[in-house]
Amino acid sequence: MTWVTGADGSPYGVTNLPYGVFRQNGGRSRIGVRIGSWVLDLAAAETAELVLAAGTLCRPVLNDFMALGRPQWLAVRQRITELLTDPAHRAAVEPLLVPLDDVELLLPIEVADYVDFYSSEHHAANVGQIFRPGQPALLPNWKHLPIGYHGRAGTVVVSGTPVTRPTGQRAAAEGPVTGPSVRLDIEAEVGFVVGVPSPLGARVPVDDFADHVFGVVLVNDWSARDIQAWEYQPLGPFLGKSFATSVSAWVTPLDALADAFVPAPDQNPPVVDYLRDVPHLGLDLRLAVEWNGEPVSQPPFATMYWTPAQQLAHLTVNGASLRTGDLYASGTVSGPERGQVGSFLELTWGGAEPVTVGGESRTFLADGDTVTITATAPGPDGTTIALGEVTGTIRPAR
Amino acid sequence: MTWVTGADGSPYGVTNLPYGVFRQNGGRSRIGVRIGSWVLDLAAAETAELVLAAGTLCRPVLNDFMALGRPQWLAVRQRITELLTDPAHRAAVEPLLVPLDDVELLLPIEVADYVDFYSSEHHAANVGQIFRPGQPALLPNWKHLPIGYHGRAGTVVVSGTPVTRPTGQRAAAEGPVTGPSVRLDIEAEVGFVVGVPSPLGARVPVDDFADHVFGVVLVNDWSARDIQAWEYQPLGPFLGKSFATSVSAWVTPLDALADAFVPAPDQNPPVVDYLRDVPHLGLDLRLAVEWNGEPVSQPPFATMYWTPAQQLAHLTVNGASLRTGDLYASGTVSGPERGQVGSFLELTWGGAEPVTVGGESRTFLADGDTVTITATAPGPDGTTIALGEVTGTIRPAR
Repeated sequence: MTWVTGADGSPYGVTNLPYGVFRQNGGRSRIGVRIGSWVLDLAAAETAELVLAAGTLCRPVLNDFMALGRPQWLAVRQRITELLTDPAHRAAVEPLLVPLDDVELLLPIEVADYVDFYSSEHHAANVGQIFRPGQPALLPNWKHLPIGYHGRAGTVVVSGTPVTRPTGQRAAAEGPVTGPSVRLDIEAEVGFVVGVPSPLGARVPVDDFADHVFGVVLVNDWSARDIQAWEYQPLGPFLGKSFATSVSAWVTPLDALADAFVPAPDQNPPVVDYLRDVPHLGLDLRLAVEWNGEPVSQPPFATMYWTPAQQLAHLTVNGASLRTGDLYASGTVSGPERGQVGSFLELTWGGAEPVTVGGESRTFLADGDTVTITATAPGPDGTTIALGEVTGTIRPAR
Repeated sequence: MTWVTGADGSPYGVTNLPYGVFRQNGGRSRIGVRIGSWVLDLAAAETAELVLAAGTLCRPVLNDFMALGRPQWLAVRQRITELLTDPAHRAAVEPLLVPLDDVELLLPIEVADYVDFYSSEHHAANVGQIFRPGQPALLPNWKHLPIGYHGRAGTVVVSGTPVTRPTGQRAAAEGPVTGPSVRLDIEAEVGFVVGVPSPLGARVPVDDFADHVFGVVLVNDWSARDIQAWEYQPLGPFLGKSFATSVSAWVTPLDALADAFVPAPDQNPPVVDYLRDVPHLGLDLRLAVEWNGEPVSQPPFATMYWTPAQQLAHLTVNGASLRTGDLYASGTVSGPERGQVGSFLELTWGGAEPVTVGGESRTFLADGDTVTITATAPGPDGTTIALGEVTGTIRPAR
């Protein structure tokens, strides 16, 4: 029970407490934590010595705080919980609450490296069937390792940032043509933010996941399918992805998701040693995709074949180091049903089966379209917590 | 003519002047410029107001200086030239020269995003023939756009850093096995370092190359061919590359390479508008690869099919922004002859044709092997300038 008005019973109650970065009236960037429809100004709280985190809460991004490590993450979370639940603190803390409507939310982390995985079996199989009909839906390596690649860290933007339609080359009968993408798509994903780094040449064991990963963001990995299809052989996606990747403004700490861990799908064939996680746990995050305000899909993250712990172990098995601010995304989240897919490529089966949005028959994104991805997760005692949203509106190509 | 002892006539004369970051006795990181076998301490020079660059020469990496833009790059270069050539400055400047033997060279830039291209026709054709015998050597897209992908910025290391042999999965008859790479290779490349950023949603025209790119480094993009071969379908190289990418400690400013621009190979079919550069210029950089001290190859950068200006225009045509510190590498530099290839994959034709190194028959890298890549370029008045070196020694897998 919190003394903050309206927060109890909301999906941003005292068991959630996601971190973000905000500013008011163009002022300086400040770290805050969300409670109900308020932001608790943690920079002010640390300055007032109400919470102590070695000064890291007074920085303009979460990185230095995330680098402190799990014992500090837990201690700060516990202290914030005390401040928001014990009425004795109300007089000191209430002046530090800012209405959410009065703030601008900023990119909460400085992204170091951005990696995108491809870990939904349903998504990979759908893509395989759409692009390689008549062949095996999955490539031979897919069940042996979590396929991933590096994306562009410099174009990771916060939810709400407009997305300019990318221009590029696409294949045509007469040869490649250059122009604005005509198959602009979304990818609904979940991203994991690394707090604690690891040294070059060492690997992070699958069991150390919670010691390195600070929290979770929602991700929309915007994708220009026509640009991607022409460019991706043999070195993978490049300009079809690198124009923008949107992330939610709120970073939900892993510790808020303790009740959301659930057994992940069985893996057959058995995985090699460095990928064996016991228990083999995924996260019961329930995503929802809205296209211009209409719900079009509910991707279930619990169906992901590869778990975030396996992804982290794979990412570092070759000795690659982790840096604070590394972001790795799950890959498109798609469940077994058409209404559970995380891309419009799948929703419209390669554009061949349009859907009705706003009374119109639609396949890929039009200028002016807005896509919003949200998610919820089980919280303690039957409650539900929300993971913020990632939204973006398409602007015409320049 | 410089008054610095021994610098005239050396490949690090006053027409070269590459920038780097050094420290002495574990002290703080300082920006310097190389002249002969000395480093001019630019942090000290700026503190003494001998050269002015808005304080950016007192920082621990080159990024803030590189962000100032070309007029400032030229002004600082001109001023350093004055200091090193006018005997009137000798008394003030000579105490700021540090013997190269007394310093440790550090990573000169904070790498933002790292992109690797694939722009040598000879290399792409060799790889095609090795991996897809009997099929067309180049894929259909190759001559229409400079193929590229994002690499791991966090594992870019300075020349001299030991490289731990990566562990990972590779294909075997009985299914994938996990272990240290058995096909560890080099890729001799040239890297371009971005100084001036560009906004999200805008493109950088091919003609604006010299306004954004500050300089050039040598790159060894170490590659585990066995890991790469198993993982790369369909999203490209990942762990086969991400364990380490070595760069030279010296960043050669583009302005030192004015005499090295030469017409690049004709492009047929003609390229699309945004890739058309007039004049179409490459760089006459002459690379040399030594394997345990033995020269094994001399890759000619002038043979590259795609130019660095075209690569930059391509990288941003979709609206992707540039950040100061972005690094994009050319891809493996291979000329038409076997003695001009930039990888041991090509040198030994996929391992089928071993070479003799140190009296032994060799294919890929063994533990303890050292590879050093150097390069020279034409300077003014028939002189030759050197581009430093990128070297690394293989340590056993952990």
